[in-house]
Amino acid sequence: MLDYKPNIVLATGEYDVVGTRPIRHDGPDKVLGRARYAADIQLTGMLYGKLYRSPHPHARIKNIDATRALALTGVKAVVTAADFPDVSAALADQEEGGTVNYGFYSRNIMAREKALYKGHAVAAIAATSQHIAEQALELLDVEFEVLPPVLTVEDATKEGAALLHERLVTGSSPNARAGGWGTEEETNGSNVANRFEFNAGDLEKGFQEADVIVEREFTTKPVHQGYIEPHSATAQWNTTDDSVTIWCSSQGHFALRDHTSVVLGINVSKVKVIPMEIGGGFGGKGQGGCYLEPVAAALARKAGQAVKLTMTRTEVFEGTGPTSASVIKVKMGATNEGKITAAEAHLTYLAGAFPGSPVPSGCRTMLAPYDIANAYVEGVDVVVNTQKTAAYRAPGSPVAAFAAESVIDEICRKISMDPVEFRMRNAAKEGTRQATGPIFRRIGFEECLQAAQQHPHLATPLEGPNRGRGVAAGAWFNGSGPASAVGSVNPDGTVSLVEGSPDIGGSRAAMAMHLAEVLGIPVEEVKPAVVDTDSIGYSSGAGGSGVTFKMGTACYEAAVDIKRQMIERAASIWGVEPDDVEYDGGVLQHKRDPELRTDFKSLARRLNGTGGPIVGRATANPAGVGNAFALHIVDVEVDPDTGKVDILRYTSIQDAGKAIHPSYVEGQMQGGAVQGIGWALNEEYFFNDQGQMMNSSFLDYRMPTSLDLPMMDTVIVEVPNPGHPFGVRGTGEVPLVPPMAAIANAIDDAIGVRMEKLPMSPGAILETMWEQGK
Amino acid sequence: MLDYKPNIVLATGEYDVVGTRPIRHDGPDKVLGRARYAADIQLTGMLYGKLYRSPHPHARIKNIDATRALALTGVKAVVTAADFPDVSAALADQEEGGTVNYGFYSRNIMAREKALYKGHAVAAIAATSQHIAEQALELLDVEFEVLPPVLTVEDATKEGAALLHERLVTGSSPNARAGGWGTEEETNGSNVANRFEFNAGDLEKGFQEADVIVEREFTTKPVHQGYIEPHSATAQWNTTDDSVTIWCSSQGHFALRDHTSVVLGINVSKVKVIPMEIGGGFGGKGQGGCYLEPVAAALARKAGQAVKLTMTRTEVFEGTGPTSASVIKVKMGATNEGKITAAEAHLTYLAGAFPGSPVPSGCRTMLAPYDIANAYVEGVDVVVNTQKTAAYRAPGSPVAAFAAESVIDEICRKISMDPVEFRMRNAAKEGTRQATGPIFRRIGFEECLQAAQQHPHLATPLEGPNRGRGVAAGAWFNGSGPASAVGSVNPDGTVSLVEGSPDIGGSRAAMAMHLAEVLGIPVEEVKPAVVDTDSIGYSSGAGGSGVTFKMGTACYEAAVDIKRQMIERAASIWGVEPDDVEYDGGVLQHKRDPELRTDFKSLARRLNGTGGPIVGRATANPAGVGNAFALHIVDVEVDPDTGKVDILRYTSIQDAGKAIHPSYVEGQMQGGAVQGIGWALNEEYFFNDQGQMMNSSFLDYRMPTSLDLPMMDTVIVEVPNPGHPFGVRGTGEVPLVPPMAAIANAIDDAIGVRMEKLPMSPGAILETMWEQGK
Repeated sequence: MLDYKPNIVLATGEYDVVGTRPIRHDGPDKVLGRARYAADIQLTGMLYGKLYRSPHPHARIKNIDATRALALTGVKAVVTAADFPDVSAALADQEEGGTVNYGFYSRNIMAREKALYKGHAVAAIAATSQHIAEQALELLDVEFEVLPPVLTVEDATKEGAALLHERLVTGSSPNARAGGWGTEEETNGSNVANRFEFNAGDLEKGFQEADVIVEREFTTKPVHQGYIEPHSATAQWNTTDDSVTIWCSSQGHFALRDHTSVVLGINVSKVKVIPMEIGGGFGGKGQGGCYLEPVAAALARKAGQAVKLTMTRTEVFEGTGPTSASVIKVKMGATNEGKITAAEAHLTYLAGAFPGSPVPSGCRTMLAPYDIANAYVEGVDVVVNTQKTAAYRAPGSPVAAFAAESVIDEICRKISMDPVEFRMRNAAKEGTRQATGPIFRRIGFEECLQAAQQHPHLATPLEGPNRGRGVAAGAWFNGSGPASAVGSVNPDGTVSLVEGSPDIGGSRAAMAMHLAEVLGIPVEEVKPAVVDTDSIGYSSGAGGSGVTFKMGTACYEAAVDIKRQMIERAASIWGVEPDDVEYDGGVLQHKRDPELRTDFKSLARRLNGTGGPIVGRATANPAGVGNAFALHIVDVEVDPDTGKVDILRYTSIQDAGKAIHPSYVEGQMQGGAVQGIGWALNEEYFFNDQGQMMNSSFLDYRMPTSLDLPMMDTVIVEVPNPGHPFGVRGTGEVPLVPPMAAIANAIDDAIGVRMEKLPMSPGAILETMWEQGK
Repeated sequence: MLDYKPNIVLATGEYDVVGTRPIRHDGPDKVLGRARYAADIQLTGMLYGKLYRSPHPHARIKNIDATRALALTGVKAVVTAADFPDVSAALADQEEGGTVNYGFYSRNIMAREKALYKGHAVAAIAATSQHIAEQALELLDVEFEVLPPVLTVEDATKEGAALLHERLVTGSSPNARAGGWGTEEETNGSNVANRFEFNAGDLEKGFQEADVIVEREFTTKPVHQGYIEPHSATAQWNTTDDSVTIWCSSQGHFALRDHTSVVLGINVSKVKVIPMEIGGGFGGKGQGGCYLEPVAAALARKAGQAVKLTMTRTEVFEGTGPTSASVIKVKMGATNEGKITAAEAHLTYLAGAFPGSPVPSGCRTMLAPYDIANAYVEGVDVVVNTQKTAAYRAPGSPVAAFAAESVIDEICRKISMDPVEFRMRNAAKEGTRQATGPIFRRIGFEECLQAAQQHPHLATPLEGPNRGRGVAAGAWFNGSGPASAVGSVNPDGTVSLVEGSPDIGGSRAAMAMHLAEVLGIPVEEVKPAVVDTDSIGYSSGAGGSGVTFKMGTACYEAAVDIKRQMIERAASIWGVEPDDVEYDGGVLQHKRDPELRTDFKSLARRLNGTGGPIVGRATANPAGVGNAFALHIVDVEVDPDTGKVDILRYTSIQDAGKAIHPSYVEGQMQGGAVQGIGWALNEEYFFNDQGQMMNSSFLDYRMPTSLDLPMMDTVIVEVPNPGHPFGVRGTGEVPLVPPMAAIANAIDDAIGVRMEKLPMSPGAILETMWEQGK
């Protein structure tokens, strides 16, 4: 597939399994339709639920009268916020390690005092059929006091703006939960949920040293993750001990368990979440993606029967979180020799109806690829009457990079410097202190730039009119978290592996490969499974590009635990000391006596009779996360008559640390770039001035299809992360960071038009061409 | 409930949880109908299977023509032995630790050359409905060559007897699998599958020392375990990797996995067995209880759709294993002072159609309660054309005890000695060498006899005519096996516990109690679950009264593992050495600094952020099994006109070692006695002379109901087993050992008639009265 391999592979381990491309264990089930997703669950006597969603973007809920709805034959239960405890105070309870402001979080799941966006859940109905439930929605009498909607930064921050929240306390730290839930006295009467800044060096002096300064303001729109599978949750309530079992698909069933328990006001161990296969999440089914689970549970509790809730596509658009719209100002100065001397950035992100946009991450990653001595970055989080935003791959970073990397491209043009060379001269490396504080450990950004310089893409001339080439860089932290894995040795020498982080992108295969590598057995002989919250230790979700890092570490350690026990068992059978037994490539061998030799399979068969089975377990919450960097190169052709942009060629270069399963890393790189192309060229939420979303279907919300795209070339750079046994960094998010800037830069290269807004749709390009007099 | 407590409680531990009577964790689900049993599984597109069963007890299968059956609309697959590999050689492959002779075992699941009993599975059909499958059975053309059936010991062993097996090699050891599968040359042309003997001391000299000698021959009939839930198995075949998932209920889903893999000729890790709740097993759903699983799998493989097989009650009677019919001769001598001087026993058990009756266990337990210097015991295993026998609570021991304890009772009458005092004078104790070889460790038989002597039952006079009182003792080894348990600490301080042995009698509660005791937390805060074969380490089944012993040990060790990690975590948070941290009653405390103090719940909440979750695991195959002894006392009234026996009063005394959950121990003691009463008075298989079972329904096979029974009193004696951390021995089987002898002795006491056969039904009693001239 790839005709070019970079020589930037610093990963030094010699591996048998890691770095190969086995068929994923869950592949056949998915290809052949046997895999079971959330909506595939059918329980005996199950009811169907529907949500009553606010038709107004901003309205006080005066009264909800369910009398007529409940009178309809087949309707079994109606729940409203009155059926949930007011958990505004849960913040305090969750202080140790808690990251969620439940006062706001619970109100997004079910509106309490006010409906804060069109589509906001106000009530829910369970009935014996979907049709009856839908019919009953019409019979629900909800009395609203309609309030003026707040839809833009200007609306939200102007003098006398309507306030969304009566209890909002503006935060002042990128580390805190945005927007505290205050007492009535504390409330400061603002729609600004958070405002914070980072300072480094002497900004004024930095700009004085610059030969060239570029300053621009960029605006972006909300875009949705566009996962194929709508949210679905089915709950069965156990009346005898008030526990509940929930089937759903998510990026983190332990997180959904935790959220559901708080929102319902029951102990966490009273909630069992059974993870179904997930049809895409990209952040939208992670920590913030809890919408239906507590509602299904409350309906099941009230109805005394199991209840299933499944969203339609329109509900997904209207009732779940896209990423933030933003307004970003960037000012950057550099010398003619290509050294950035100063950078100033002001990022305002719209959080939607409740505090918590990803503006902290935008601020932290925006300048991260570069060593900039003098910098100032301001982040502002603003609430407006639209859907509460949710995470979307590298949350906050793509639009920040769109702004910063566009400005850098313009500087390069002004000083006539190759943009890769410019980035090389400023590249962050091990020891670089970031503008936002932390000092980098070993990172691979320079190696990505080297790989770009060596790649034939940049050396290939662009032929034809209206064609242009752009490059852009991107950074993402990557994450960690608690992870638990247990491996059981079977008598036929295979190992059953259970773990608690859902598989959203091939992680079962990667986990099996960790075990197989350590144990020296074929990866096909490891059977990985993701199990429910009662069957494994706490495991954080698949997010932050962290699963292969954190759960991989747990699987590695579980394998080491198995290996140690296998050595001890062989020693016990042979009557020797464990220290005298070597384990290499699945073979156990006494160090001095060649007669004492066995292998994993043979020993596995004997375990039960020689002391019992062997089970290895590990839990982890590893430090030592390795940061990810990427450089993308794109060639475009712009139709000057229509403004339509075609992607001609695309190369995605990224430091994976060590690619456990290169095909899946490549898939992440390709998928991220494709989502970035959609974001760059087409995707956006259209709201009318009443705050109604006008394009809540896949017909009107235009995502790229395979016909829009060329083959996406991928180059995996491997600068191993010393914090993981095989050097893994994490790969899922950074590929979505550079595309918009790379394409904007290519458009400028093609037609000399600098785009300052997303999406760069045909209309927007024509408009900008006219504005700029082209 | 009990107005008497013995003072025979030697268990010395001070426990908070062990010995209490919490509500079982799985209780509400079972009471409220939410628990899911094997037949509750419904899969999309699932087919229904039926077995074609032989109408002849002995017939050569000449040809099976499925043409007409397959032509019926809705029939999707037919399988016969040709669809299974001939695994006669699997014995050799399984030698390391293997206990199953698959040449025979596989032929019981699906007849190959011959049908060997009426009801023997010959073919199976899968169709889109049960009705179509039943209809298709009529269209299956099976050509038999009918052979003369062999039904009794005399039939089987006479000169020129028809042979069941052409490859049988008679065994000669109680330790070997009975009846080897030989080559054609080795075959010795016999229906005797095994014959072995035990010798101790000088038998002749022993009888010479006796003042009184009693010799009798006893015969017993097959009886069924009578579990409520018929066997059911549903299989889904994965064509891409030839793996199969099976839902079924059993006493050991790992054993079913192993058997199914061998019978299908696939690797053990290609079979995943998901355990459903079990509606009774009593041995019949254990190691030997694999009937439907490989057949459902083979049908699913062939049909390409999931297949469910569920037996009717008649199929359970005709197609699964009862316990053995037997012929037992006992000769015993004693002095007038009540010392047994010699014992000779010849036990012949009918194995049914394939080798392997429980005659070895009968031989080993028959004399185990007593210290007998001079003994000879012979065991003979014979195959006949009836159902292959399966395990039934203390397999082999009840009928052996019926014989031995009847003879002892007669000796007591002859020398006019109290039967409890007689047993006390001969009681085995720590250090006693058994007639069959092994030396007892600490056992509690003497303490059971003391408890009987102290119990008001024996002191209460019997009033009225035709009433009598009997006592009898019983012994059972108890068992062990591999066991795996994993406990995960939840953030709310509860612990999720997963384990791999099915819960057939409250073991989830007992397992949770082990964990709770060690960790000092309430038992309600442990959430026990039995998980599938892919989700936990190898765990042997619930059998041999071993689960609380072996899996309890694993759970205890898993809790110790959790405790150790909790201590380490507290030490790490406090920055002190783990050795300086004490853990007592769920409280962690620095040994010298009173400020450093926390508890399980508080620490649990902090785990994720302080190094990750905590998961404890343990595997075990513990030695140190503690043997079980029991003494039962029963009062009966015999109606001399009808022969009907009423049970007036029943007291069951038993050494449990340590009763983890006394209610469940009492339940085992009561349930065992009730099954013994049924066996003693009513239950038997009626065969006509053509080998057809004539009473294969619960209408005609008479089991006791609550109306037949008085309240069963129970006395738990606790002589702790030093091989288990809390002293557990195992309680499930020994309560079925004494009842038949105790009742026979009571009948003799009541009407002076010594019964030599089971059941002691009204007809049998009248017949014996006439024979003995009463």
